[in-house]
Amino acid sequence: MITPQLIEPRTIAVIGASQDVTKPGGKVLHNILAGSFGGRVVGVNPKVSSVQGVECVPDVKDLPQVDLAILAIPARFCPPTIEVLVKEKGTKGIIVFSAGFSEMGAEGKALEKQMADLANEAGATLIGPNCIGVMTPYHQSVFTTPVPVLTHKGCDFISGSGATAVFIMESALSKGLSFSSVYSVGNAAQTGVEDVLEHLDVTFDPAMSSHTLLLYIESISKPARFLKHARSLVQKGCRIAAIKSGTSSDGGRAAASHTGAMLNSNVAVDALFRKAGVVRCYSREELATVGAVLQHPVLTGKNMAVITHAGGPAVMLTDALSNGGMSVPPIPEDKTRTLLSELFDGSSVANPIDILATGTAEQLSKVIDTCEKDLDMIDGMVVIFGSPGLFDVSDAYDVIREQQKKCKKPIYAVLPSVINAKAGMESFIAQGGILFEEEVALAQAICKVYQTPEPAAIEEMALPQAAEIRNLINGKSGMLGTADMLRLLDLTGITRPQERLVTTESDALEAAKSIGYPIAMKVVGLAHKSDAGGVILNVQTDAAVQESFAQLMRIPGAEGVQVSQMESGVEVLIGVKKEGEFGHLITCGLGGIFVEVMKDIQCTLAPLSREEALKMIHSLKSYPIIRGIRGKQGINDEVIVDTLCKVSGLLAAAPEIEEMDINPLMGRGDRLSAVDVVIRLSDEQK
Amino acid sequence: MITPQLIEPRTIAVIGASQDVTKPGGKVLHNILAGSFGGRVVGVNPKVSSVQGVECVPDVKDLPQVDLAILAIPARFCPPTIEVLVKEKGTKGIIVFSAGFSEMGAEGKALEKQMADLANEAGATLIGPNCIGVMTPYHQSVFTTPVPVLTHKGCDFISGSGATAVFIMESALSKGLSFSSVYSVGNAAQTGVEDVLEHLDVTFDPAMSSHTLLLYIESISKPARFLKHARSLVQKGCRIAAIKSGTSSDGGRAAASHTGAMLNSNVAVDALFRKAGVVRCYSREELATVGAVLQHPVLTGKNMAVITHAGGPAVMLTDALSNGGMSVPPIPEDKTRTLLSELFDGSSVANPIDILATGTAEQLSKVIDTCEKDLDMIDGMVVIFGSPGLFDVSDAYDVIREQQKKCKKPIYAVLPSVINAKAGMESFIAQGGILFEEEVALAQAICKVYQTPEPAAIEEMALPQAAEIRNLINGKSGMLGTADMLRLLDLTGITRPQERLVTTESDALEAAKSIGYPIAMKVVGLAHKSDAGGVILNVQTDAAVQESFAQLMRIPGAEGVQVSQMESGVEVLIGVKKEGEFGHLITCGLGGIFVEVMKDIQCTLAPLSREEALKMIHSLKSYPIIRGIRGKQGINDEVIVDTLCKVSGLLAAAPEIEEMDINPLMGRGDRLSAVDVVIRLSDEQK
Repeated sequence: MITPQLIEPRTIAVIGASQDVTKPGGKVLHNILAGSFGGRVVGVNPKVSSVQGVECVPDVKDLPQVDLAILAIPARFCPPTIEVLVKEKGTKGIIVFSAGFSEMGAEGKALEKQMADLANEAGATLIGPNCIGVMTPYHQSVFTTPVPVLTHKGCDFISGSGATAVFIMESALSKGLSFSSVYSVGNAAQTGVEDVLEHLDVTFDPAMSSHTLLLYIESISKPARFLKHARSLVQKGCRIAAIKSGTSSDGGRAAASHTGAMLNSNVAVDALFRKAGVVRCYSREELATVGAVLQHPVLTGKNMAVITHAGGPAVMLTDALSNGGMSVPPIPEDKTRTLLSELFDGSSVANPIDILATGTAEQLSKVIDTCEKDLDMIDGMVVIFGSPGLFDVSDAYDVIREQQKKCKKPIYAVLPSVINAKAGMESFIAQGGILFEEEVALAQAICKVYQTPEPAAIEEMALPQAAEIRNLINGKSGMLGTADMLRLLDLTGITRPQERLVTTESDALEAAKSIGYPIAMKVVGLAHKSDAGGVILNVQTDAAVQESFAQLMRIPGAEGVQVSQMESGVEVLIGVKKEGEFGHLITCGLGGIFVEVMKDIQCTLAPLSREEALKMIHSLKSYPIIRGIRGKQGINDEVIVDTLCKVSGLLAAAPEIEEMDINPLMGRGDRLSAVDVVIRLSDEQK
Repeated sequence: MITPQLIEPRTIAVIGASQDVTKPGGKVLHNILAGSFGGRVVGVNPKVSSVQGVECVPDVKDLPQVDLAILAIPARFCPPTIEVLVKEKGTKGIIVFSAGFSEMGAEGKALEKQMADLANEAGATLIGPNCIGVMTPYHQSVFTTPVPVLTHKGCDFISGSGATAVFIMESALSKGLSFSSVYSVGNAAQTGVEDVLEHLDVTFDPAMSSHTLLLYIESISKPARFLKHARSLVQKGCRIAAIKSGTSSDGGRAAASHTGAMLNSNVAVDALFRKAGVVRCYSREELATVGAVLQHPVLTGKNMAVITHAGGPAVMLTDALSNGGMSVPPIPEDKTRTLLSELFDGSSVANPIDILATGTAEQLSKVIDTCEKDLDMIDGMVVIFGSPGLFDVSDAYDVIREQQKKCKKPIYAVLPSVINAKAGMESFIAQGGILFEEEVALAQAICKVYQTPEPAAIEEMALPQAAEIRNLINGKSGMLGTADMLRLLDLTGITRPQERLVTTESDALEAAKSIGYPIAMKVVGLAHKSDAGGVILNVQTDAAVQESFAQLMRIPGAEGVQVSQMESGVEVLIGVKKEGEFGHLITCGLGGIFVEVMKDIQCTLAPLSREEALKMIHSLKSYPIIRGIRGKQGINDEVIVDTLCKVSGLLAAAPEIEEMDINPLMGRGDRLSAVDVVIRLSDEQK
């Protein structure tokens, strides 16, 4: 819970206020005073009565009523200080910079808990400890630089790591990105990334709130809350880009050592982000670049015009866009005849549109006009404009900036001349422009944003037999027995091969007749059927049934024979695995050797909507085989979607399923039959 | 051919010398005068007798003897000017800045040819037209900025695009990369990228030459020369990184419009670079980053120490290194006990080594010492050191720079604080340091460099039957007939199923007996056997042979029956396709549906060494299936390698093969038999 006092305090107290701006207690005071805060600031310092021109009291007890308190004092002094603040000073916002808490071991963890308990009791927000602070348009309570001007049009930014937040801001500001708020949650004793996300969601105001949110996360401890609020924000029109680091095994160890992060499964994080419509990034540079793309108007199609005065970067950009799934389509000559006549000889308007090294700002403006107004086929523009150092190109940069303000289509500006056009680039940013130094990084970010799916619909399939499923499951644990497993498939509505248990030859013949040839026959009563020769497949005639029955019943221990329908067709698999707080991960792919060798599977988190299920199947590289290839009939999408959604419904009814492996399901057309199934329940109920 | 006069001229003439430094003829003169050139400079300008303090003559005829001439005059004046230079002035180096040549059409192309012919006759080097010029340590004859100080320790750089060269240099210089020479080849009327490459190869001096070469290429017109000299340079110890752009279809169109580039197959370029040991890059930023990595000592193993004072970037770096195939191994406690005692409480030495935000330069130095001297398991270090803005971190940057000079292991410096530590970063570069702003881009570059293979051995397999193969091929063209094709397989030494053509039932029976059951029987004399029911597989008994023979001979047009051995086992394919000047591309992969759906194939250029062949097979994702999986016997590596090398030998003997498709080859263990083959020769001999 984020209190209004954290966002827009009337009074701020800095506990540990210092004259020395190389210390956090000095720098934060400096930043607050230099920033936009218009309320009262008081310092606590036992030695002096004033620092940096601000009144100081010797003890926290001497403070007036305070909305927001910032603690820059040793860890052990923090809990008693907070107690005074929340109990005596009406404080509802607390930021603890100090390190020396849970990252140092059990003792520090206990201190953290004390602080969180005090804040919770008082209904106060506690940010930190071990963080760099918070910035909103109303106050900039951080002890680091840079401190940008915060505006409601900028990005919101939540970071699980303080120094990383600084480095990301440095990279973003160098591109002209602006910020609306910055939250460094540190050890997140009380308030984590998910809590700030919730706050941004519930307070979202389409007119006033930021429409871009950046996240740096090392650990997602409340994935359900993350999903709920990220999804909701995206559906309200806010676009989210996030780094979740520490996903390799070495990196997980690094993150654990850094912030005590739990190791989240990388696949689960991917599934969570996809479900929420979050753009996943892997580096500071990528996050800043994607953030910069998100600050442009939304691309409504994938056709890009590339406008340049230098061929090489345009070629690399075009390669990267088209390899990434966008398109740089040739522009028909009749659309650009007039335009061409206004450019210098040798210019090209085929797309890329190359106005040559000698091209003027005025020509550039005409090209942009044409793309905006005359070319319906074009959805967005990338303008590449650098300088070989002969003359100033600021006039071209002014044109780009003006056109960005006027045009409805997004115009992404690649300004590559970090040396030759440095002044022009700085002025472009000062005018509010956002620039990209490198075309390929931009192209990759554009492709990634364009291809990030909308948040998935949350459709919980309610199985009609849910009550019976509960009856079956209740009190059970561990591996399910065969009979329970088959019953569970039937209750879930998943097709399986017809089967009959028989003990006489005549019953066997009758079973075969009712099921229809070919059939499989398996001995019952033995543990290792196959080893004992107890499985006979593809039995095709009455005579063969008689012979096989006799043969199977001669096996010592045989109690009967199971007669089953032989399934054939394409093999697929459906898997389920519980991933801690993330819930159930549902996997699907082609069955058999494909999965084992090619690792061609798709995953999503339960519950699974029909749309998600269809997307999963279509995203498989091996989908053409599932659909049917070389005249071989495949499986219809609908029946796989049905089966996946029924599995999702089963998980809702029986969340204690830890693992489930239906491998293979076989079929063709509208039939898909679960040939082999393993289900393991959690062991907790034992 | 590059003349010494282009590299180290004694006299330079600027034709079109100008007072106006916003014009190429003025800027180049300015750059030459401001640079390291120590010889005589003369201008040609019909209007004035001196520009920028340099003596001018009115006409090129009035020049003294000139080693190097730079032309900044309209295109049509260039050929006559060059004629005077090479015939009367002894000029051996010519740089033409002017545009308006082949990029403008046929007329311009003719002008280009005139210039090239004149230069060739005179044994002079012609650079351009449509280029920015040439820089060596001896002169900086470019009309662009930046003009760096050129040293023999820097990178050589060859670019097929002028403005791109500028932008790449800007990016590289911002990282502290230095240059040894820069060649902008422009339209390459006479001298292309391959020619400069040859020059660098034949003049390579281990003590004096640059050991890093960067390339930006839009078209490779002489791949064989490229391969020869790139390979040779790499073998001499020079490391090469290259962008080859214009490889997507949209990008190819862009490149064609930019420099008239031919569309090179992306797969062929990949194969060429791999064979030459060239690191392939896809963006300016990546080229500069890889170049910066190459300027460090060679990494001799994949174990990296990550040293940081900020956890987040270290986590992302560790993820990227370990996902990219490097390792950030945990360091055993006993190795670091002393080190830990010298760091602040809460520091971690487990790797990443985190000295905390409060860590000092002295502590950083001790960590580096330990990694260099005490940790044999560590092959290289990445140090991440930024600034949250509290205090100056220059002392830490000085430590990194000092350690880089002392240590044998490479130390890559990530300095992320582009705002807070700007001055420190600039001073780091001024001291000769190379820095990386972003850890993930660095990690990707390190992984890419480490994983680029050594140049492939060139082993031409000489087939013993080469003469007979020539006899068979000579005079033929287009699709090879069945008999020729089978004979060619036999001459090449590739196993194929036993086959006998029979026309009587008794011969069929005898053939079946000698080949052994099961057999396949195919009608002979029809074009579309399968459609007419003319193929019967898996014939297993004498009776079935008799029945099948009769059935096949009843088909109208049947002239006989081919009795073939049935092959079984794993299916693989080998393909060949001639890719213009690149020669033959040899493809291999698992056969059947896998290739069609999963596109899991590996390619290389002929000739193919055994080592390359083995690497191809091992690089297939489906290799476990080829090797044998789930108890199913696979095919031994050696027999696939043999077959691939024999195909390579066949291509050497019969280079007119345009396409060859052996699909499938079937087998297990040491048998691999070509079941179906198509060979197409070039049509030229028709």
